[in-house]
Amino acid sequence: MKQRIGDFLLRRLEEAGTRHLFGVPGDYNLGLMQQLEDRGKPVWIGNCNELNASYAADAYARINGIGALIVTHGVGALSAINGVGGAYCEHVPVICIAGSLPLRAIERGDLMHHTMCDREKEDLLRIFSEVTAAVGRLYPDNAATEIDRLILTAWRQKRPVYMELPSDIAYLEVDVPDRPLELKMPQSDQESLKAASAMILQRLHDAKSPAFLLDLDAIRFGVSGQVMELAQRFQMPIATLNCAKGAVAESSAQFVGTYGGAFSASAAREAIEGSDCLLTIGYRRIETSTGFFSAKLPPSAIHLNSDYIDTAAKTYQGVYIAELLQFLVSATSGVVATKKSARPLEPLNFVRSDEPLTQDQYWKAMRNFLRPGDVLVVEDGTPSNGLSPLTLPDDCTFISQAFVYCSIGYATGALLGAMLASPGRRHFLFTGEGSLQMTVQEISTILRHDLKPFIFVGNNGGYTVERAVLGRDAQYNDVANWRYSELPNVLTRNNQTETYVVQTGNELQKVLDAPHSGMVFVECVTNKYDAPPALIVGGHALADSDYGVPGPQSVANSQIEMPKGNGKLTPV
Amino acid sequence: MKQRIGDFLLRRLEEAGTRHLFGVPGDYNLGLMQQLEDRGKPVWIGNCNELNASYAADAYARINGIGALIVTHGVGALSAINGVGGAYCEHVPVICIAGSLPLRAIERGDLMHHTMCDREKEDLLRIFSEVTAAVGRLYPDNAATEIDRLILTAWRQKRPVYMELPSDIAYLEVDVPDRPLELKMPQSDQESLKAASAMILQRLHDAKSPAFLLDLDAIRFGVSGQVMELAQRFQMPIATLNCAKGAVAESSAQFVGTYGGAFSASAAREAIEGSDCLLTIGYRRIETSTGFFSAKLPPSAIHLNSDYIDTAAKTYQGVYIAELLQFLVSATSGVVATKKSARPLEPLNFVRSDEPLTQDQYWKAMRNFLRPGDVLVVEDGTPSNGLSPLTLPDDCTFISQAFVYCSIGYATGALLGAMLASPGRRHFLFTGEGSLQMTVQEISTILRHDLKPFIFVGNNGGYTVERAVLGRDAQYNDVANWRYSELPNVLTRNNQTETYVVQTGNELQKVLDAPHSGMVFVECVTNKYDAPPALIVGGHALADSDYGVPGPQSVANSQIEMPKGNGKLTPV
Repeated sequence: MKQRIGDFLLRRLEEAGTRHLFGVPGDYNLGLMQQLEDRGKPVWIGNCNELNASYAADAYARINGIGALIVTHGVGALSAINGVGGAYCEHVPVICIAGSLPLRAIERGDLMHHTMCDREKEDLLRIFSEVTAAVGRLYPDNAATEIDRLILTAWRQKRPVYMELPSDIAYLEVDVPDRPLELKMPQSDQESLKAASAMILQRLHDAKSPAFLLDLDAIRFGVSGQVMELAQRFQMPIATLNCAKGAVAESSAQFVGTYGGAFSASAAREAIEGSDCLLTIGYRRIETSTGFFSAKLPPSAIHLNSDYIDTAAKTYQGVYIAELLQFLVSATSGVVATKKSARPLEPLNFVRSDEPLTQDQYWKAMRNFLRPGDVLVVEDGTPSNGLSPLTLPDDCTFISQAFVYCSIGYATGALLGAMLASPGRRHFLFTGEGSLQMTVQEISTILRHDLKPFIFVGNNGGYTVERAVLGRDAQYNDVANWRYSELPNVLTRNNQTETYVVQTGNELQKVLDAPHSGMVFVECVTNKYDAPPALIVGGHALADSDYGVPGPQSVANSQIEMPKGNGKLTPV
Repeated sequence: MKQRIGDFLLRRLEEAGTRHLFGVPGDYNLGLMQQLEDRGKPVWIGNCNELNASYAADAYARINGIGALIVTHGVGALSAINGVGGAYCEHVPVICIAGSLPLRAIERGDLMHHTMCDREKEDLLRIFSEVTAAVGRLYPDNAATEIDRLILTAWRQKRPVYMELPSDIAYLEVDVPDRPLELKMPQSDQESLKAASAMILQRLHDAKSPAFLLDLDAIRFGVSGQVMELAQRFQMPIATLNCAKGAVAESSAQFVGTYGGAFSASAAREAIEGSDCLLTIGYRRIETSTGFFSAKLPPSAIHLNSDYIDTAAKTYQGVYIAELLQFLVSATSGVVATKKSARPLEPLNFVRSDEPLTQDQYWKAMRNFLRPGDVLVVEDGTPSNGLSPLTLPDDCTFISQAFVYCSIGYATGALLGAMLASPGRRHFLFTGEGSLQMTVQEISTILRHDLKPFIFVGNNGGYTVERAVLGRDAQYNDVANWRYSELPNVLTRNNQTETYVVQTGNELQKVLDAPHSGMVFVECVTNKYDAPPALIVGGHALADSDYGVPGPQSVANSQIEMPKGNGKLTPV
C-alpha cells in the first residue's frame, strides 16, 4: 500500500503500542506534527523542554514497553540527549525522532539554522550513535524498512534509537507494508537453547543452594514471573540489585533483599555469595550497583543475559532470555513448587511528634502510606536512599535512575510519563529540592493534563546527597530556597492542587491521613545534615572511589558522618 | 613551580579573565569544586541545571571575552551539550570542564555510574568533538600543557572546548609554568598580511562604492572600531547580517541597516549588492542569516575571515583579522575620514490606548524605553523579530541566538551570564512564554544573586513563532498557561520583584514610566495571531525551505498571514 512517510511512522509507533508521544515542536518537525494532529493519535503530549520529554518517554517506556519523543534537529535533539543516554544506560526502549534538515540541504551542503553550521550533516548521527543501539536517517527509498528496523531494534534490545526524518519528505508517499508491525523477539538458536537449558537444569538439580540475582533486565525483559516460578520449584532465594527494586514481590518468602556486595544485609549476601548455582539475570558489574565492586559472585555463576548465556567456561550465543526461562519453566513443570506463605507487610514503627521531621520518620511514614500497586517515581539522593532499604508493598512499580545513570532531575519528567502509561494507579513523586529545580517546569504538563499525583519534595537546604560525598558545609552544595508549595498554583491558572509544608512527623501524618481529591504537593522540611544511612555510607564510598588517596574527603568535616550508634549498612 | 592540577586550572581560568564560573556540582567534580571553594575565586555561580549553565556561560563569554562552566561526567556534560553546540555555532569561547571518571576507572575499564555503562571511555570526547574546537582529557603528565592549549584554542578561535578532569587527579601536584597565561593571537604570516593588505588597499582606492558587510565575527573578534574607522575614511556604508546586530552604532551615518538578501530594506541591499569593493567580516552563508540564500554578494567581494582572507581568485591563509584591520587602519592614517553626523534616534510614534496591546505597540514602546549602553538579551521568536528591525540606541549590546542556532530557552539562561559579565548596566530580557518555560528556573539564580533586570515576557498563547511557519491553530503550538507574574516571588523567599501584567498600551507605558528599584517582571499579553511582520515573512520562507512543494504549508489557514495592507519586508 501507499502511505506518506510521516503517517507511516506514526502508524508504526501506534502498532508498537505507543499511545502517547512526548516532545517539543520545532520548524523541522512541524510537518510530522501536523500529520500527528490530523491523525489524532498517538496523543501528543507537548513538554516544556526536550530533556523533560526524554525523561517522560523513558518512564513511559518502562511501564508501557516502548516510548517515543519527537524533537527538532540539532537544538532539540541535543537538549534531549542526556535522557536518551539514560535510556541507553538503563536499558529502556525509547524512539527519539528528530524532524531534521531537509534532504535538499543535506545534498547541497547548505549551512542551516539549528546546526553547528560547519557543513557537517552526519554529526548528530555520530553523536547519537554513542548513546543508542542504532541510528538512521530516513530517505524515500528506505523509510519503510528503516522505521521498522529502528523500532524493532529498540524494542528487542531495550535500548533507545535515534531516527532522523528530513523535513521535506514527511509528506512523500511511499510503498509500505499493509501488515501491522509485530513486536516479537527472534527465536533463539534451538541447539544453543537446548544445550544451555540442559546445562542449567543439570546444575539446578545438582545444586544445594541455588539462587537468583536480578539486575534491571529482569524488569525490562518481563521475566519476573518465570523467575519466581523457577525459584519456587527449586527453593531458590532471590536477591535484586538496587537498580532492580520491585522486580519481584518483596513480601515473597523467596525474596531475600537487595544484594550489593559488602553493602548487603546478611541474608542476601549469604544467599548469593554462598550459592552453588547462582543464576543471574542481566548482571552488570557497575560500581554503584555492586557495592563499589565488592560483590563476590561465585565463579560458578550462570549469567543469563538478554541474548546470550555465559558461564566461566562456555558461552551460548543467540539464546533470548524470555524464551530460555519459559523453556526452563515448561521443562520443569513436573517439579512441585513449594510456595511458602508471603510475609505480611507490617507497618513500620516510629515515634511521631511535634519535633522537627527526621529522614527516618519521613521514609517510614511514606512506606506505611503506600499500597500494593502504587507507582513510585523516586529521585536519586535522599529519596532513593531513604526508600530503597524499605520493603515495599507488592506490585508497586519503582521507577528510578538512582543507581546506575543517576541523572538528577529525571524523576519529575519521569512522573509525567509514568502517569500516562499507567492510568488508574496511584502515583508518587519522591524528590528533593535540588533535583526538582532541574526540571520543575514539567509539573505544569502534569497539571495541564489533569493528572493527580502525590508529590513529596524534601527540602533539606541543598544537595544533601553531595554533602555526604564532599562539601558538608560548602556553598556549592547550597541551592536557592524557593516557595516550593506555591509552585503548582503558579504553573497553571486552575488552582487544583492541595499544597502543604510539613516540618514535623505529626504534620506529615495529618496530611497523609486527610482525604485527597486533586494533586497533592507536600514540601517536607528536614535538616540538611540528616540523611538516610545508606546515603552516608554510599557517599563515603563514592568519595573514596572518585578521589583516591588521600583526597579531599580525608579532611575533617568534609562529609556528613553517620550519627553515633548507627553502624548499620557499614561495609564489612 | 608546583601546583595541584585543579588549582592550576582555576588559576588559568582566572588569568584568562574568567571572574565567574557557572555549572552544577556532581560527585566527579566535587574535588575541583572544593578547590574552588577554598580558593574563593573565580566566583562560583551554581545553576539550576547544566543547560542553563551553558547558556549563561555563553552570554558571559560574549561580553567578557571568555566564559566557563563546570559539570559532572556524562549526565552533566550531556545536559549541557546543547548550549556548547550553540557556542560552537555562534562562535563563542566557552570552556566546558567536566569533572570526569577517575583515571583508575578508565585504566581498568570499570563500568561506572553517570556513563553509558558500556565500557566506552572515549565516548564523551568523541561526542564533544562534534560541537567544539578541541577536546582533551587531563592526565598528570599533560595537564599543564593541555589546560593552556584548550583555553587558548577557545579564545583564539572563539569556539567552545571540552576538557575532562578525572576526579582522582584534581589534587595531584604537578609542574606548571610560573608565568601567567597570555591571551594573544598568533602573529599573521607577514608576507601574506602585506600582500592581502596591498590587494585590499588597491581595491579600496580604485572603488567607487566600497562597503562593509558584518557577520557575527565582527563582534566576537572585536573589530568594530577598525571597521568604522575604515568606513569613515573610505565613505563605506556598513550593513550587518541579522546575527551581527549592534556590531556598529546604528545611529552612525555609515550604517545602512540589516542585509538579508531579498529580505533587506533597499538601502542595505543597494549598498551591498551594488558594491564594487565589498569587504565582508566573517561572512557565512546560512539560510536564516542570508534571506534563505537570496543574498547576492558581488563576486568581487573580499571575505575577511578570522584567520584567512578569501577572494574569488586567491586565498591568503594565516592572516588574522584584527591584525589585518589594524594594519589597514595604520596604513591609511593619511586618509582624512569624513565623519558625517550621526542620525539622532527619534522616539517611535504609535498610539497608546486601552485597547489590547499589539506587537507593533509593544516593540515600539520597548525601543523608546531603551537607553545607550543597555544590554538586551533577546529570545528567538516574536522578541527577535520585533526588536531587530528597529534602530537601537548606540552602545547597546544585543545578545541573541535568534538568527543562527535558534535554540529557544537560551535567553533566560543568557540573562544571568550577561548580567554578571557587565555589572552597572541596565539589562533586559525579552522573551515569550513558550521559551521562558524551557529554562524558567534560572530566574531563581538571578534573584539569588540580587540582580535586577527588566524581564518582559510576551504571553501570546503558545509558540507564535511556529504558528507563522505551520499549525496556525494547531494544538501542538499551544503551551500551558502559567501565572507568569507570580513566578519571581515563588522562585525566592525574598519578595523583591515588582511584577506586572499588562494588556494594553497604556498599561505598558504606565509600568515603563514608573520608578523602579528591584527586578521588574512584566507579563505582556498579546493576541496569539499578532506577530511582527518579519516573523510572518520569515516563517513562510522557513516553511518553504523546510517542507518543499507542495508541503503542508500550502493548505489554507495553515500559517499566520500578514495583515492586509502590510506588505513591507516581503521578499521581492
